[in-house]
Amino acid sequence: MPSNDVFAAATAAFATYKTSPGDVRAGFLRAIATAIENLGDELLQTASAESHLPLARLTGERGRTVGQLRQFADLVADGYWAEATIDTALPDRQPLPRPDLRRLLLPIGPVVVFGASNFPLAFSTAGGDTASALAAGCPVVVKGHPAHPGTGELVARAVTRAVARVGLPAGVFSFVLGEGNEFGGALVSDPRIKAVGFTGSRAGGLALVDLARKRREPIPVYAEMSSVNPVVVLPGALAAGDPAALAQAFVASLTLGSGQFCTNPGLAFVPAGEAGDAFVAAAGRAVGEAAGQRMLTEGIAAAYERGVAGLAAADGVEQVATGTPGEGAGAPAPALSVASWGSAGELAEQEVFGSSGVIVRWDDTDELLGMLGGLEGQRTATVHYDGADVDDARRLLPVLEDRAGRILFNGWPTGVEVGHAMVHGGPFPATSDSRTTSVGSLAIERWQRPVCYQDVPAELLPDALADANPWALTRRVDGVLELGDSSR
Amino acid sequence: MPSNDVFAAATAAFATYKTSPGDVRAGFLRAIATAIENLGDELLQTASAESHLPLARLTGERGRTVGQLRQFADLVADGYWAEATIDTALPDRQPLPRPDLRRLLLPIGPVVVFGASNFPLAFSTAGGDTASALAAGCPVVVKGHPAHPGTGELVARAVTRAVARVGLPAGVFSFVLGEGNEFGGALVSDPRIKAVGFTGSRAGGLALVDLARKRREPIPVYAEMSSVNPVVVLPGALAAGDPAALAQAFVASLTLGSGQFCTNPGLAFVPAGEAGDAFVAAAGRAVGEAAGQRMLTEGIAAAYERGVAGLAAADGVEQVATGTPGEGAGAPAPALSVASWGSAGELAEQEVFGSSGVIVRWDDTDELLGMLGGLEGQRTATVHYDGADVDDARRLLPVLEDRAGRILFNGWPTGVEVGHAMVHGGPFPATSDSRTTSVGSLAIERWQRPVCYQDVPAELLPDALADANPWALTRRVDGVLELGDSSR
Repeated sequence: MPSNDVFAAATAAFATYKTSPGDVRAGFLRAIATAIENLGDELLQTASAESHLPLARLTGERGRTVGQLRQFADLVADGYWAEATIDTALPDRQPLPRPDLRRLLLPIGPVVVFGASNFPLAFSTAGGDTASALAAGCPVVVKGHPAHPGTGELVARAVTRAVARVGLPAGVFSFVLGEGNEFGGALVSDPRIKAVGFTGSRAGGLALVDLARKRREPIPVYAEMSSVNPVVVLPGALAAGDPAALAQAFVASLTLGSGQFCTNPGLAFVPAGEAGDAFVAAAGRAVGEAAGQRMLTEGIAAAYERGVAGLAAADGVEQVATGTPGEGAGAPAPALSVASWGSAGELAEQEVFGSSGVIVRWDDTDELLGMLGGLEGQRTATVHYDGADVDDARRLLPVLEDRAGRILFNGWPTGVEVGHAMVHGGPFPATSDSRTTSVGSLAIERWQRPVCYQDVPAELLPDALADANPWALTRRVDGVLELGDSSR
Repeated sequence: MPSNDVFAAATAAFATYKTSPGDVRAGFLRAIATAIENLGDELLQTASAESHLPLARLTGERGRTVGQLRQFADLVADGYWAEATIDTALPDRQPLPRPDLRRLLLPIGPVVVFGASNFPLAFSTAGGDTASALAAGCPVVVKGHPAHPGTGELVARAVTRAVARVGLPAGVFSFVLGEGNEFGGALVSDPRIKAVGFTGSRAGGLALVDLARKRREPIPVYAEMSSVNPVVVLPGALAAGDPAALAQAFVASLTLGSGQFCTNPGLAFVPAGEAGDAFVAAAGRAVGEAAGQRMLTEGIAAAYERGVAGLAAADGVEQVATGTPGEGAGAPAPALSVASWGSAGELAEQEVFGSSGVIVRWDDTDELLGMLGGLEGQRTATVHYDGADVDDARRLLPVLEDRAGRILFNGWPTGVEVGHAMVHGGPFPATSDSRTTSVGSLAIERWQRPVCYQDVPAELLPDALADANPWALTRRVDGVLELGDSSR
């Protein structure tokens, strides 16, 4: 079980870290980024050995990881995150005077972050959850993923170096390893923990949500879980382009990194007719030519094989292509099926984590809208579109808005940009809280709660709310935005 | 059971209402306010007959109700609520181009609002939950409170008139009445409902939270529940002022409106010593001289009497004063007790809804901090303070920040200002979601979720995200705030 010291240290650190100015947090986040870069090739090699992901991919993932740490540094230096809001006193107002009211988003308290298997760097020890929580002012306890413990330890060492370098209390960051549901459950159930970040399976996420609700003080769990990321191909897009090239691009996204992405496009809606037939045939050829790559763990590979076999055996599903397995164990072949929505729609909607795609054919827009309207919540929804499809797209868009966190046109959902406008979330079961994102600036809001200060004397007000605005924050004063240093 | 038509109408209305511009929603909210004012004295008389609240109080509550409708109208006309965010494409970026990414907060879908017994106007049919949800673009189904059905019907008629007047689909607002847990449960469990607002008891709120979690698609429930709103009296405040006058002001807040406020100060921490003794004695005299007023319902009055009797009979609690019952049934006497924290702290912390106050004495700051540190989450925390208390207050503030939604100095928690900076929330069990408020501008965020549009063609983008900014919104473009019309 996790040591009591970890929780005690996080609690002690919170007392000072919660009031740290944005530039201190920014310096800390930048120091973490530098310390990770300083780990050099050892980090990439360890991560590759543990995760079986290629070095090129991990090099890119490291870039994303340090990039998002620096983006959160910019965000907190700017201070917009705090939503400082001041309604000045109106002592002469009738019938009653208005008190002085000031509002700030404060960090929620120490948080637990569960490392993800599929992103040993960007969604793990110093990944997006950790970066956004530290940016918000929350100490973080990371539970390292058991599939890449050495990678986790290395990154944790880098973070610990950064903590020492900027002179923060040690408890602002802890890294723990431990297997089994009980270990993770003890982290979520400790009363000193105030929120949880998780990326992983639906069953795992829901178990944590339940544990968190059963506490004396229930706490939020931000679980990023299951999504099949539907792709809708509209007739105009097929007519205007090359159906075979489009299908090849679909399969490239489907098989990228063995399909082990939360944004993997596992379900495509392709129109009936010749052009759609050409798309399906070309997709089948592309999958047939694709080879498996070693998956993250043998358990994940085995679950993938069970999922593909279950699909192939189901009524209303026809497996149209399989590729070749990769070298060695745990590198199963990509697979493509065509499913009849009437008899196999529910199965087609279930995520098979890996390079398994399902195509559903549709006859007219009403049928398509009916299919999409019944889908569970999704992280992304993709539309392949040409100007000729505009009427269909106008009917489609509201349905997709209600069901997905990100809607993208004429592209593929894999490859998630880290920025202010990104949403990596979506309605249940894509996430446990559709109002949130785990990627991009808005991710910081998961770890904050608002507090109002009424007639609090100047000598006691947080700096962010002081009249003189010593942090030069963007603030809303009597309803009007006053821009801070970074927005001028 | 609620009619299927209600849900179907709300769903149909959502399709158009969700895309309505801010000025349409603003016009609607203002039309509701006017229609409520046009109900005239009939509304006040009906509400008074049903709730036993005096006309003067209800006149004030009506002012607050129409005032907050108009504040939300201003908020949506301004467009700041949408958090429109644009990261423009960088086609030449290396190693990968950046797509065009645009983010908007969209309404979450049709919501259910449960009317509250204690605010027949401001927290009921067209109260804060309804106003903020309509402002966000969500159709609202109100479950009227059975204690004031006639008031609810009258206000619902006014809202319906406003719907017709501004030409919105009828399903944008519905009002239903029905008793029993099953009726309310059916509202929360319908798959077409996407969020719930509730103000009431802890048991009632938690039952709705549980129901919402058990749905195929779990949804957020914003339940405003239980709080004893601790008041801390510091020694300097007693020394600098008149302890008896301070105690009288405490009792005035405690007994206001029969203590039937979510911000009623039910627990006071008063220092040991002579000045504190004088405070307690004066508070006892003030309670002794106070008369009961008829409470909202006989059930609420009976629960109050059980709560007061339970306190009086408990070990470690001494009842120091009771007032006189009011005329007629259901008007129990105010009561004041002194409790020993060691033996009766847990009981003292439980809300007795009504004019029941508990005083706890403390010897030194460490003891006080220990008491406050163990408290559950609170809607408010009040400090009576003089400059001489500054060192104590500096230690106190972080503890209160972690436990309360609003911290106020040298005032009383009853009387909640509606504004941009207000937080009427707080950690569990004050609310079911400590990141939210049910009063003030930020209340709108409960009914919104972010959606990202990636490379969506101009002809399909929502107006709020169009390049030309036709709604003149404040937007964040490439990280920099660009002020809209209303903020310039």
